[in-house]
Amino acid sequence: LKLTGEVELVKMIQRLAGSPAGSRVVLGIGDDAAIYRPKTGDDLVFTTDMMIQDVHFVRATHPPAAVGHKALARGLSDLAAMGAEPRFSLLSVAFPMTAERAWITAFFRGFIRLARDTGAVLAGGDLARAERFFCDVSACGAVAQGQALRRDGARPGDVLCVSGHLGGSALGLASRRGAAWRRHLRPNPRLDLGIFLRETLRATAAIDVSDGLSLDLYRLCLASGVAGRIDGPLPVFHGATMEQALHGGEDYELLFTLPAKTDLPSAYAGVPLTRIGTIERGPPGYVEFRGEPLPPLGYDHFRVSPHP
Amino acid sequence: LKLTGEVELVKMIQRLAGSPAGSRVVLGIGDDAAIYRPKTGDDLVFTTDMMIQDVHFVRATHPPAAVGHKALARGLSDLAAMGAEPRFSLLSVAFPMTAERAWITAFFRGFIRLARDTGAVLAGGDLARAERFFCDVSACGAVAQGQALRRDGARPGDVLCVSGHLGGSALGLASRRGAAWRRHLRPNPRLDLGIFLRETLRATAAIDVSDGLSLDLYRLCLASGVAGRIDGPLPVFHGATMEQALHGGEDYELLFTLPAKTDLPSAYAGVPLTRIGTIERGPPGYVEFRGEPLPPLGYDHFRVSPHP
Repeated sequence: LKLTGEVELVKMIQRLAGSPAGSRVVLGIGDDAAIYRPKTGDDLVFTTDMMIQDVHFVRATHPPAAVGHKALARGLSDLAAMGAEPRFSLLSVAFPMTAERAWITAFFRGFIRLARDTGAVLAGGDLARAERFFCDVSACGAVAQGQALRRDGARPGDVLCVSGHLGGSALGLASRRGAAWRRHLRPNPRLDLGIFLRETLRATAAIDVSDGLSLDLYRLCLASGVAGRIDGPLPVFHGATMEQALHGGEDYELLFTLPAKTDLPSAYAGVPLTRIGTIERGPPGYVEFRGEPLPPLGYDHFRVSPHP
Repeated sequence: LKLTGEVELVKMIQRLAGSPAGSRVVLGIGDDAAIYRPKTGDDLVFTTDMMIQDVHFVRATHPPAAVGHKALARGLSDLAAMGAEPRFSLLSVAFPMTAERAWITAFFRGFIRLARDTGAVLAGGDLARAERFFCDVSACGAVAQGQALRRDGARPGDVLCVSGHLGGSALGLASRRGAAWRRHLRPNPRLDLGIFLRETLRATAAIDVSDGLSLDLYRLCLASGVAGRIDGPLPVFHGATMEQALHGGEDYELLFTLPAKTDLPSAYAGVPLTRIGTIERGPPGYVEFRGEPLPPLGYDHFRVSPHP
């Protein structure tokens, strides 16, 4: 399985950066988030995500408050996947001198509202001008020492599960109507669920489905050195195609693995939980869907061939 | 004294964000860095800084390793101004599909080398494509609880001091030659000095001179609710003009205040320390230079009138 693009780039950076051994960084480049371990107390989990005009959003389509909401939601979803509780956020923003004040204010309102609702208080940032709007968000969460959910803990025999419904965001972007459109504009990071998976269900691994099930499952299996098999019915968002459910990005649901004998509740806090397959021995990152290999076609910024 | 631009924007964001009261963020928007206080152990200090092609650097002029170096040095200089010791960094990078691999690799090498030298190990980040290169860096440092140097602690009667020589970076950008050019390309964050100022000299306030002495002194005085007077000889970088020393950006020296009776050494670890004036009662942010008001003309991304 050969991936050009982002995966290769991350490997190059990891090679240059070397190991963080000797530092207090106990998990570095390559997971949903980095983990910093103080001498005492909780581990702190950090993630950073960009939102770039004409790459992650389009001004004609996405209202500014939704852009602000999603800019933070993406990082919070990474914290959810680690089972961490949000503590604060940092926000760097660049925009043209000609940007309307109302747009910028609405962007900040959307960001700050979600920050307040989730405890990810806006603690600082940077401002600059640029030809087009972009922002970068760092989010910090806390988790009991050594307890963070990682993407590398899946073991053969584990069951593979997903929260919510898949393909809704891709459907929403295509249709711009109804519940799917609202899902696309204002994803709801699964923070409470992440803590439940870590504390109560004792999940062995988790990742958020930000770039599509196929690519994020590939990443989880690759990091864990295992293969994956999807054999159960997929929880497809009402109206979405199987293509959207398998490869559409930005659903921000959690994909997780549980020890085989775990009793999976049908939902947690109103969010359905579905067993979709199993973790198996096999080539790391290899995934089968209904007996056929499933290529990781989800969203990759640096793939050479265009997104299908 | 009326400033449009970045100062107004920051006020708007502070107003929207409200107070971080009730959270563990003990210092929020508006200082060099934010402070997060865990239940036990050191305070953690966070700062975030962007480097944008054609805003902060130009490809024809700035070698990629220098861009990587400076992208991190800017954040480390903020940590130095807080008297904090670097712990890790996060790096978001966006660039065009057409970017040469050699340029990107050299950028990462420049960043990672400084990260290793200073303990700011690269722990994670984000990658995306964009029309032009930009990056955003978050840097984290640690400091004993409640001991961080802030910009709001200057009191009337304190002496006002600065490290190194001013105007070198502006001179270097203009001349592209010699020591000034090297200073512009590879600024050296004053990390050891920051810790010395905090632990040994018991500085009352500090800020790094990133946007020019006039603007950064204005910010320190405004935050502390005091006025400033520059009356001593300024340590002007060899060959730089007084204009460059007063208003030129990117020197990344430390501007700090000390109780009046402090014995100021002439240098620390090879970096000269110079008393340049005093802190006085007066309109917050008002600064005099040789008996005349000194306008804060340093670099402001959102000033309506262009930079002189």
